[in-house]
Amino acid sequence: MNNSRNTDLLKKFGANLKRLRESKGLSQEELCFKSGLSKNQIGNIERGEVNTTISTLAAIGLALELPASDLLKFDI
Amino acid sequence: MNNSRNTDLLKKFGANLKRLRESKGLSQEELCFKSGLSKNQIGNIERGEVNTTISTLAAIGLALELPASDLLKFDI
Repeated sequence: MNNSRNTDLLKKFGANLKRLRESKGLSQEELCFKSGLSKNQIGNIERGEVNTTISTLAAIGLALELPASDLLKFDI
Repeated sequence: MNNSRNTDLLKKFGANLKRLRESKGLSQEELCFKSGLSKNQIGNIERGEVNTTISTLAAIGLALELPASDLLKFDI
């Protein structure tokens, strides 16, 4: 996958995560607390600056009480 | 997410990927060719030895002609 396409993917993932987090009424701090991730990590992920791994994805899904697959339900 | 749970997650992801790849009638070599990943990467992922990233997940989904979210549809 070329670089610009990859950057686009990560930005879309981050925007989708933010949408899901807000739909659950959670702040970034609350998601950090529930997922065990740092505030920096959540912020970087939502800005599309991090190529998140499966285990981080699973931790976020659990924290949002959503199937991890939902985090990838956007137009890739 | 603690280590043993993480290892379990990655093994389940790998087994699910292998199941999906075989359901598409693709060998590891064919998946490598279609996804642009190396044979080593595919083998390591299917054995649960790699914490795959979102961009790799998206490349595999495209190669399997499946939504990337399907790659995470297993009992996490």
